[in-house]
Amino acid sequence: MPEAVILSQGNELTTGQTLDTNANWLATQLWALGVPVRRMITAPDRLDDLVDILRQAAELAPIVISTGGLGPTRDDLTAEATSLAFGTGLVEDLVAMEQIEARYARWGRPISPANRKQALLPTGCTVLENRWGTAPGFAADVDEARLYFVPGVPREMRPMFETWIAPDIQERHQIAPPVMHTVRVIGVAESALEEMLRPVQVDGLTIGFRTKLPENQVKLVFRADVPDRVREAAVAEVRGIIGPKAFGVDSGDLACEVGKRLVARGETLALAESCTAGGLAAWLTDAPGSSAFLLEGAVVYSNEAKVRMCDVRPEDLEAHGAVSEPVARQLAEGIRQRAGTTWGIGITGVAGPGGGSPDKPVGTVHIAVAGPEGTFHRRLQLPGDRHRVRQFSAAAALNYLWRGMR
Amino acid sequence: MPEAVILSQGNELTTGQTLDTNANWLATQLWALGVPVRRMITAPDRLDDLVDILRQAAELAPIVISTGGLGPTRDDLTAEATSLAFGTGLVEDLVAMEQIEARYARWGRPISPANRKQALLPTGCTVLENRWGTAPGFAADVDEARLYFVPGVPREMRPMFETWIAPDIQERHQIAPPVMHTVRVIGVAESALEEMLRPVQVDGLTIGFRTKLPENQVKLVFRADVPDRVREAAVAEVRGIIGPKAFGVDSGDLACEVGKRLVARGETLALAESCTAGGLAAWLTDAPGSSAFLLEGAVVYSNEAKVRMCDVRPEDLEAHGAVSEPVARQLAEGIRQRAGTTWGIGITGVAGPGGGSPDKPVGTVHIAVAGPEGTFHRRLQLPGDRHRVRQFSAAAALNYLWRGMR
Repeated sequence: MPEAVILSQGNELTTGQTLDTNANWLATQLWALGVPVRRMITAPDRLDDLVDILRQAAELAPIVISTGGLGPTRDDLTAEATSLAFGTGLVEDLVAMEQIEARYARWGRPISPANRKQALLPTGCTVLENRWGTAPGFAADVDEARLYFVPGVPREMRPMFETWIAPDIQERHQIAPPVMHTVRVIGVAESALEEMLRPVQVDGLTIGFRTKLPENQVKLVFRADVPDRVREAAVAEVRGIIGPKAFGVDSGDLACEVGKRLVARGETLALAESCTAGGLAAWLTDAPGSSAFLLEGAVVYSNEAKVRMCDVRPEDLEAHGAVSEPVARQLAEGIRQRAGTTWGIGITGVAGPGGGSPDKPVGTVHIAVAGPEGTFHRRLQLPGDRHRVRQFSAAAALNYLWRGMR
Repeated sequence: MPEAVILSQGNELTTGQTLDTNANWLATQLWALGVPVRRMITAPDRLDDLVDILRQAAELAPIVISTGGLGPTRDDLTAEATSLAFGTGLVEDLVAMEQIEARYARWGRPISPANRKQALLPTGCTVLENRWGTAPGFAADVDEARLYFVPGVPREMRPMFETWIAPDIQERHQIAPPVMHTVRVIGVAESALEEMLRPVQVDGLTIGFRTKLPENQVKLVFRADVPDRVREAAVAEVRGIIGPKAFGVDSGDLACEVGKRLVARGETLALAESCTAGGLAAWLTDAPGSSAFLLEGAVVYSNEAKVRMCDVRPEDLEAHGAVSEPVARQLAEGIRQRAGTTWGIGITGVAGPGGGSPDKPVGTVHIAVAGPEGTFHRRLQLPGDRHRVRQFSAAAALNYLWRGMR
């Protein structure tokens, strides 16, 4: 199997200003193709160093993927470095220029000289069209190696890899790509998953784990020659071992799956959020089409809003405090009643860092899900900082709704 | 100024299983010390490659920091690779063994042969005590370079860097760290900022740019010997050139700054969000203390909710549609009225990918800010996908509020 080198360029990476998620994402994709990564190299925007690194990378592996350095500013040195490293010279690439012009025309904006620089590419390279942004990518062949260059912006880099680079690697190296299934899990730690799945031994199956908070994922990678029925049986086995906390296989995230199930059942949802303050609503509506099931939400930070928007009883606020079971229940039931939805969710908690007490320390969260058969409630004590508490609160609420719908 | 190389070791990194946050953290720390990072290299657990990389690193820079590969398993090859790279041989280090023994004694656990392996270090190295875990670190001098080796577990690596490595680097290289200021900007593109600030030429000042959507940042890095008044004048000059869209210097993000200003003025805010659906509320409440100014929000996806929660007039919904100036204004004014806040924000738009029309294509967003002196409204045509339209809508709304408060 051919190996790969991943390059990441930019002073923002070597000064620590930006956490490089591209190299990790590419490593995961290459892993799924069965291509081992031999090295990941990050360099500042310095011409000499880039030249050295490009030469070294082309010697180390036949596949080199470089992200960053294709922008319009003078820090963006990738094309120049490639030209110097391999002695190709630079030329204004007509295909690239056409793509940039078409993009700006669609936007109705003029092209600056800086944007024009983005079409200056190494002579003889192949342009990789960027339909997701302005900077075109390119591929250059050096001896036995092919070097792929894409922008550092993840939302451009990722589709460019999927659309142009992955198929090209498969074709050039005649890789029969393995078949991968992703089991998506909420509420089970990675180490616990690893332990649970240790007994699963299938010839041609490699199991990997990824944490993508708030969920964990089990990656099942089957060699291309594993028969379908063996593969399907293994997926079913894994799903059976994990149980209902495995909410999907090759599916969207939990918010997507909850939304799909609500739509399929013709059901609707309304939210009353205190500590998550719109975070659950924003998550559910990340996916298009969410207006079919999410009718409304109330962000009820103040006690007055809890009373006015969700009919929480002032005497319960007084007696039990805003972070309490009765208030969570009344939030869920009140918003469900007002909105006339099938389901209502109420969340109230202490996200921190302030606001904790011995009784209700930071991380105390009450979640209620009101539905046709009554109201479910749970009190959680969540670890972590404010961000984590809010994220896990939203995930837990969706998890309860998901399981309540079964 | 001496430069540094950061090494990260482990198959979990090159297969994408684990996102490497160590290299980024170390880069930030080194940057704060004024030490430029010349390269960051990640390698799998493969002896030959590690030997090559260590030799290369020691030639590239006088400071090398390596994380990972110090554990008890046979994958942990760091000490062996160092010994091979520099021909030192390995020896059971008495200081290291004593530290491991003391630690296990405190835990009341027996020491396994695998743990004993962790004391097998390159001859002549200096042990770096690990008070936060079991694997000792070490430092080795090779020609002009000093190589530091620490475990990959962040909660061990970080205090080891702070306690042993950072002070050692400062002393050995007599470093005076530079002074940095960050100017935070909303609504000006990175390329435009670079263009605007080209005339700013100050001896000892380096200007960098960072995009952290939805904002852009200008990083002003001053050499340690630049006098305070020169530094302050340069910051003021940059701020003056950018104008009111520079919302802060060394400050929090726009949501933080809006929140701080509201609190300082004793003012309050309520939100009525349709297309952003809680995204603005969630953003404003990311920062602790937001309950002091954000009283409530309404996520009004359905028309019925717009009417019931914010008193939007049904006849205007009928006549102009939900994405329209009158509806945005009524959302802002209605929620402000109901919540009794100083300010109300209304957002309604077509986030896409569906729902567009010739009249109101995807990206059409109406934003209204209602305040003591009336209601401001703007119609925007935003580029990008659903996520981007929602993110920029929230940022634009805050930007209008920010400028309305002046």
